[in-house]
Amino acid sequence: MTPIQLHSYQTPNGHKASIMLEETGLPYQVHVVDIERGDQHAPDFLALNPNNKIPVIVDPDRNRTVFESGAILTYLAERSGRFLPANEQERLVTLQWLLFQAAHVGPTLGQLWNYKVFAAERIPSVIGRFEKETARVLKVMNGELGKRAFLAGDSYGIADIMTWPWIHAGLKHLGLDLAASPDVGRWYETIGARPQVRRGLAIPALGDRSDAA
Amino acid sequence: MTPIQLHSYQTPNGHKASIMLEETGLPYQVHVVDIERGDQHAPDFLALNPNNKIPVIVDPDRNRTVFESGAILTYLAERSGRFLPANEQERLVTLQWLLFQAAHVGPTLGQLWNYKVFAAERIPSVIGRFEKETARVLKVMNGELGKRAFLAGDSYGIADIMTWPWIHAGLKHLGLDLAASPDVGRWYETIGARPQVRRGLAIPALGDRSDAA
Ligand SMILES: N[C@@H](CCC(=O)N[C@@H](CS)C(=O)NCC(=O)O)C(=O)O
Ligand SMILES: N[C@@H](CCC(=O)N[C@@H](CS)C(=O)NCC(=O)O)C(=O)O
Repeated sequence: MTPIQLHSYQTPNGHKASIMLEETGLPYQVHVVDIERGDQHAPDFLALNPNNKIPVIVDPDRNRTVFESGAILTYLAERSGRFLPANEQERLVTLQWLLFQAAHVGPTLGQLWNYKVFAAERIPSVIGRFEKETARVLKVMNGELGKRAFLAGDSYGIADIMTWPWIHAGLKHLGLDLAASPDVGRWYETIGARPQVRRGLAIPALGDRSDAA
Repeated sequence: MTPIQLHSYQTPNGHKASIMLEETGLPYQVHVVDIERGDQHAPDFLALNPNNKIPVIVDPDRNRTVFESGAILTYLAERSGRFLPANEQERLVTLQWLLFQAAHVGPTLGQLWNYKVFAAERIPSVIGRFEKETARVLKVMNGELGKRAFLAGDSYGIADIMTWPWIHAGLKHLGLDLAASPDVGRWYETIGARPQVRRGLAIPALGDRSDAA
């Protein structure tokens, strides 16, 4: 098949897509979209995603362009026949946890990142609000992962690939602490040991930097 | 069929589910979860949604409990065979816009609501940040709605039902202004004129208040 074209950057949302591509083994090529330089606002990129955000994939053989990481993971799961059960009930549970990541894990850790790390102004009440919400989200995950091995069931799947890069980024950049969430810790270690995940985290490499987005 | 059990409250996320139930015509019964009183933290409710949030539906005939509004809309679309095309490409586009709502429209307007309306402390830089992001999100929507009648295509569907209640709430409570977004305005009026939508907005009525959640 013609390689899938991945437009991405070194961020947790980007890593969801690169980890999934590594997991599926589908052939792909990487285009760096340097969001620190503003590449996401270039007309060529906006034609791929009007929401000016990475990741985006283009699948030339099927003539498809997909943005929103949860949709990308779902598409690649269908494309490869892996990491998403065929059973309708299990698919619905997976969709719930994809949405939980999109609506809660991502926005909460994203705001915490902004206010704790990037923002010029340090506002304790705002940092405190997003830290409290982060702890709540981790508690929800820990409760679920105490009942089963992975977020959406007994098998590793796209709900995990959607969520893992944010927990990883939180541990690396936001002082996240899993001491009170041992089942999240176990899940985090299990997934982090996968070679496909390690490879996905390295993408895009700086050497992939290209203007041919 | 046994009526679907809706656990909800008078909020934009709750309205997504009640509008969808009105649109599909599926029989349902309402249970008020008073999130201002803390009902969402009761053990009986947490057994339905460990993320302590409305809306939740229970479909007794299929033995299903569904949380996350995007998953609820998808489930009810499958259950009724309406508001979600069968075509795989159109389903993927719908999923993109469900996720766009979950990740961008909802969290942005939700934070704006908190900092502009609820928070004790008024922090101009924080309000400004979420107002700017709100304007960006509206601009993205306006661009798309300039190209087609509804968010995910030519037909009204669950991506619209997912998003409309937040625009409605923004207009009512957050001083949202659609002057610069005429296509969002047209879309908003078209959908708002539907009797099913008006009925869904009235649910839950205060009279539905019940402890039998
Ligand atoms: N909901 C989106 C979020 C994607 C996202 O926030 N991407 C960030 C990088 S992690 C980005 O491209 N930001 C650039 C910008 O907002 O201008 C998804 O899940 O794909
Ligand atoms: N991502 C969730 C969000 C649901 C949500 O935020 N619900 C709010 C009301 S609009 C809630 O129940 N809040 C109660 C709480 O957080 O304790 C969805 O789309 O269903």
